[in-house]
Amino acid sequence: MEFSALLTSAGINIAVCVLFLSLYSVLRKQPHNFSVYFGRRLAEEKFQKQDDYFSFERLLPTAGWIVKAYWCTEEEIRQVAGLDSVVFLRLFIFSIRIFSITSLVCVFGVLPVNYHGKEMTHDHIPTEPLNVFTIANIIEESQKLWVHCIALYIITISACILLFHEYKYISRKRLAHITGSSPNPGHFTVLVRSIPKSDNELLDDTIRNFFVNYHGSSYLSHQMILRKGHFQRFVDRAERAYRKFVRVRLSESERNGRSSMSRCGVCGVRASSFQLYRNKFLEAKKADLTNPEVVDAQKNCPGALVFFKTRYAAVVASRVLQSSNPMLWVTDLAPEPRDVYWSNLWVPYKQIWLRKLATLAASVVFMFVFIIPVAFVQSMMQLEQLKKMFPNLRGLLNKSFFARVVTGYLPSVVLLLSLYTVPPLMMLFSSIEGSISRSGRKRSACLKILFFTVWNVFFVNVLSGSVLNQLNVFTRPKDMPTMLAELVPKQATFFITYVLTSGWASLCSEILQVYNLVYNFFSKCIFCCHQNTEYVYSFPYHTEVPKVLLFILLGFTFAIMAPLILPFLLVYFCLGYLVYRNQILNVYYPKYEMGGKLWPIMHNTIVFSLVLMQVIALGVFTIKHSPVATGFTILLLVATVLFNEYCRHRFSRIFEAYSAQDVIELDRDDEQSGRMQEIHQHLQDAYSQTPPGAAGSSRSGGQVPIELILEDPAQEASESSQELCDTVQEVSEAHEHSIEEAAGKAHCV
Amino acid sequence: MEFSALLTSAGINIAVCVLFLSLYSVLRKQPHNFSVYFGRRLAEEKFQKQDDYFSFERLLPTAGWIVKAYWCTEEEIRQVAGLDSVVFLRLFIFSIRIFSITSLVCVFGVLPVNYHGKEMTHDHIPTEPLNVFTIANIIEESQKLWVHCIALYIITISACILLFHEYKYISRKRLAHITGSSPNPGHFTVLVRSIPKSDNELLDDTIRNFFVNYHGSSYLSHQMILRKGHFQRFVDRAERAYRKFVRVRLSESERNGRSSMSRCGVCGVRASSFQLYRNKFLEAKKADLTNPEVVDAQKNCPGALVFFKTRYAAVVASRVLQSSNPMLWVTDLAPEPRDVYWSNLWVPYKQIWLRKLATLAASVVFMFVFIIPVAFVQSMMQLEQLKKMFPNLRGLLNKSFFARVVTGYLPSVVLLLSLYTVPPLMMLFSSIEGSISRSGRKRSACLKILFFTVWNVFFVNVLSGSVLNQLNVFTRPKDMPTMLAELVPKQATFFITYVLTSGWASLCSEILQVYNLVYNFFSKCIFCCHQNTEYVYSFPYHTEVPKVLLFILLGFTFAIMAPLILPFLLVYFCLGYLVYRNQILNVYYPKYEMGGKLWPIMHNTIVFSLVLMQVIALGVFTIKHSPVATGFTILLLVATVLFNEYCRHRFSRIFEAYSAQDVIELDRDDEQSGRMQEIHQHLQDAYSQTPPGAAGSSRSGGQVPIELILEDPAQEASESSQELCDTVQEVSEAHEHSIEEAAGKAHCV
Repeated sequence: MEFSALLTSAGINIAVCVLFLSLYSVLRKQPHNFSVYFGRRLAEEKFQKQDDYFSFERLLPTAGWIVKAYWCTEEEIRQVAGLDSVVFLRLFIFSIRIFSITSLVCVFGVLPVNYHGKEMTHDHIPTEPLNVFTIANIIEESQKLWVHCIALYIITISACILLFHEYKYISRKRLAHITGSSPNPGHFTVLVRSIPKSDNELLDDTIRNFFVNYHGSSYLSHQMILRKGHFQRFVDRAERAYRKFVRVRLSESERNGRSSMSRCGVCGVRASSFQLYRNKFLEAKKADLTNPEVVDAQKNCPGALVFFKTRYAAVVASRVLQSSNPMLWVTDLAPEPRDVYWSNLWVPYKQIWLRKLATLAASVVFMFVFIIPVAFVQSMMQLEQLKKMFPNLRGLLNKSFFARVVTGYLPSVVLLLSLYTVPPLMMLFSSIEGSISRSGRKRSACLKILFFTVWNVFFVNVLSGSVLNQLNVFTRPKDMPTMLAELVPKQATFFITYVLTSGWASLCSEILQVYNLVYNFFSKCIFCCHQNTEYVYSFPYHTEVPKVLLFILLGFTFAIMAPLILPFLLVYFCLGYLVYRNQILNVYYPKYEMGGKLWPIMHNTIVFSLVLMQVIALGVFTIKHSPVATGFTILLLVATVLFNEYCRHRFSRIFEAYSAQDVIELDRDDEQSGRMQEIHQHLQDAYSQTPPGAAGSSRSGGQVPIELILEDPAQEASESSQELCDTVQEVSEAHEHSIEEAAGKAHCV
Repeated sequence: MEFSALLTSAGINIAVCVLFLSLYSVLRKQPHNFSVYFGRRLAEEKFQKQDDYFSFERLLPTAGWIVKAYWCTEEEIRQVAGLDSVVFLRLFIFSIRIFSITSLVCVFGVLPVNYHGKEMTHDHIPTEPLNVFTIANIIEESQKLWVHCIALYIITISACILLFHEYKYISRKRLAHITGSSPNPGHFTVLVRSIPKSDNELLDDTIRNFFVNYHGSSYLSHQMILRKGHFQRFVDRAERAYRKFVRVRLSESERNGRSSMSRCGVCGVRASSFQLYRNKFLEAKKADLTNPEVVDAQKNCPGALVFFKTRYAAVVASRVLQSSNPMLWVTDLAPEPRDVYWSNLWVPYKQIWLRKLATLAASVVFMFVFIIPVAFVQSMMQLEQLKKMFPNLRGLLNKSFFARVVTGYLPSVVLLLSLYTVPPLMMLFSSIEGSISRSGRKRSACLKILFFTVWNVFFVNVLSGSVLNQLNVFTRPKDMPTMLAELVPKQATFFITYVLTSGWASLCSEILQVYNLVYNFFSKCIFCCHQNTEYVYSFPYHTEVPKVLLFILLGFTFAIMAPLILPFLLVYFCLGYLVYRNQILNVYYPKYEMGGKLWPIMHNTIVFSLVLMQVIALGVFTIKHSPVATGFTILLLVATVLFNEYCRHRFSRIFEAYSAQDVIELDRDDEQSGRMQEIHQHLQDAYSQTPPGAAGSSRSGGQVPIELILEDPAQEASESSQELCDTVQEVSEAHEHSIEEAAGKAHCV
């Protein structure tokens, strides 16, 4: 690809970006889009709905949102969207800082050196091929490689300093978050699994006896986790469907003067009939505790939540091995109530190690199977090969503009689209894995997607571009540095366009919320469903974090190889910072709190990127026969690994466990202020297996009901439509049955 | 090598073994060798010294010791030599069991199949080359490979069943050991390191305040670890030298009617003068607590031992993160007093991760540097190459017998001798690593030596035999199975002779205690040192466990490749079982208790051996084009890995932590029986930084003083001789100084 083709690509993307951002600034002012662009605010009902009058101003693109997003303080974001959002935005701040330094060093230091690396007559710059700007242009044994070595040192050292600073800052934030937040029931609760069954006593008694015996002074009470029966599951599903499709909002229905006995739009059952069913069932369940069936159900109980009087006692119980058989009485600190992933609590503990191994194997297999579409994308990069594959398009491809679009733009789009299948699948794997918390599941999915992205976007693209069978390459780890050093500069073009398309365009699609916009448009304007405003989405960390980390990896690996990528990346990070700030403030609602636990993953990936950069540089210096620079790079490599080890020792445990000092201080504060009694009372009903709010009012304590916060639009949509079908069928059957019964009774009378 | 050469080698070794064992049975009856062969019994003074009359019976070889060793029960061994010895002997029992099955299957099933693998006319068996008996004799796509596949399944399944049984058995033994043994001060004590320094208060107060504040209900007291000053170190060293070279045994000196003021044989100072020095110093130290110098010394304190009222409190304090900075207030359960490795307690905690990485790097480098002697040994196997290297020996090498000895016997001896340098070095690495306990250091050394042995004896020998540059091989992990499959059968000859020489001969040298025998002979008969009987040795697990595990690895990997090795191995394990039982009962004295923590290492290595066996079989089946057998082997491989994962989940935590249930029960027992008060009182003086017994009587509670139990003869000898030199110099200087002082005083008066 020539420099002019790159400029074409950049031009298209800049135009698209400007267009989309303008479009956003217009669309967000349209009242019927408020539910798309101000989901969080609507959900919290802080946003005053503007009246629906028309003004010309509404059609003018403005930049006010940028200013608003920029001037919001970090503390405001933390209060509004939780610590995780702050951590995510810190990743952008880190990236902007380090890539400003890197851009300065590489664009003004390394790029001219690369350009004048060989003695050659330079053409007019736009017609120059792109590898003139890469390290491939430097001749062997050149003294100029020193510039690269020094650049490597500057980048690594500044990155380490910034990383350490960030780790320290985020650790402090996390500690402040733990000590500063309102009492979390999860801190007092331990999840006990794999409780030994005894024939003589009820499981309920077994649990009580064990904890009274060994943790008598701190044990408060416990709550069994019951496997849901068929009927309970039916009631739950019916309730969810009812809540989803009828959407009786108390405030609105009161305002409209309609009774709460409104008809469900889909199946024609009265809305209150589910409540009646439910109450009936609950009563039946309570009465049945002496029933042998219930006793049997209790025996199948997979675990229990045990409440302790103090946080410290819960921490101790979760950290200490309980029984001399490590497979029995397994204790973990419970996630906070909104974070509990109930359906996985029913997974027997003994299966979990097997499930973890199986999902690991499945993910690895999927990673390798995915090479096929990537190889296809790569083959599109070679124009000649493309002409062979599609002989019909030969005429079109011979035209210069089309050829540029096809080689420069289309491959990234294909890759991007195929990558969209990955997150739901990895999320599924993580669900099967058996994580007890939603946040754990999301973190695990994030890690899987990260590995996947780095492998399939970076490695496979780098290697498949020139080596046919890239698997063979990986069986020779020793040759990796030189091989990467040869191949990485060649792929610079692809990755620059990847930043432009995948990076910039994904930011545009993120801010425009295309999927929701279309959905909203159809449901409001075509189907005239006017009360479809309740859903908010939780931030998809598992897809966004790997994306940003991939760009950081690209930035570091190409920094000295092909510095042309850096300005585009810097623009991406700046734009991303503003866009995500805006989205976090306006659109997403935090479903649960991960407490900044994503940072260690980010930190490790960034250090991996640094190491990869050094390994590739090592290969380059080896190829170019510069032994002294090689030596210095090895030194830097060792220092980077040591730095990472130090950070791990210094910080990582903060993200894994609570310290005695902190929790004891918190306990004392609560005891002295007399709040403890209140917390204990609240504990008993904090964990409810039926979704919170299902029993009564749909909104308690100003929080958005958890079932109205969606994790992944596509996945949840398919789930809920499935549920709808099931429920409609079941409900209509039940309705018919009750009618028949009533008819029967009438007949009898 | 031909079959007859193998028989020659076996013949030599059997003769040597019989000779040595007979020699042992004679030598052990000689009273002046009692200190060599009954060290433990003498140390415990249970062994009644026989009178020194001469009888003809003393010169007759007998087998009584075998009977005695065999009939001793496991419980007796546990009481006498601790749980670790039991675990070590269980390894032999496991080996005998599994290799009996393997021998049956492979010698009667696989060996005939290998022998008749090709259609060929077989010569007279003794002149048959050895590869006729290996799997190399099977033709490609042979149906006979099914026999190997079935043998693989039988071996793996029986090994897994036996392993599971052993793990369960040893876990139960470990739990019984923890709950059944007398109260261990280590269970009540937590080692705290990296205590934050404050300018306002003494470190002593900082520690007390912290634990009273956060563990107030269970904190008992604490003891600071003081970095020894020059004077204290001098006194200690002097005392050790004094005790080593003067050897005043109270009982003997009383019997001999000599006063305890006997003269030190080396330097001419009165024996009691050290005691005087020491008392003076102790008094000075106590008085000096208000001295700024002592305060300063306290500030440099690297940690403290904190005593708790109950075991449970100590376990909790050791498991829970104490401070929100994970690098401060680092807590670990303290080792038992005899197990504490004091000189490492003075290592600042912040250095430890760095030390660990550094020793890891050093061990890896050493492992690779060691390839040089191994390659030399391998070159000796090729007769032609040897003739080229030493043209002078050409005449000798042409003689058939010499050629057999050189190719069949000498290489193993050279390898064996060069391997003797490894344990002291690895022990040194493990000391530098910063382990707080002697047992931890030994376990770490054991692991290092294990890796080293497997790498340098197995892999390097297998690969360097035919491939020149074996490092290149390891850079292609994918080709490993087929490469190993090609090379392993070729090396069968070497490893069979290795079992004969290294295995059998090392058992003979173990039982004869050659080093100690010679040392004893010289010291008693030449230098007429009659009181040299105090030393006992602790069992060198770090050298013996890797040795046995290597033979298990060889057994598994060669089982279906070259089944001829199995009978020799079985003899090794049976003989080893008897020899080590005898040695554990008579010679070694347990210096400290590891509580069976070696078993997880053994288990993992055995599983690794099984996996290696399967990987090699996979390679063989691939080479021989038997895809179905390959598929079945992959299935077996996956099942083995799953088995190991299950065992890890089921058992490994038992070896790492104490369970709440167990320690709380122990605490309750002690409280109810009123023993707790006594234990608390004993705690205060259980940990003494000066060697136990130094302050008063040399033997307390029937235990052998720890400084009289040597870890590694060679290492300790060099250490103590170094110490002697230092001490003699210092003592003589001090003596001169005191004489001068006295002279000065006299002059003044």
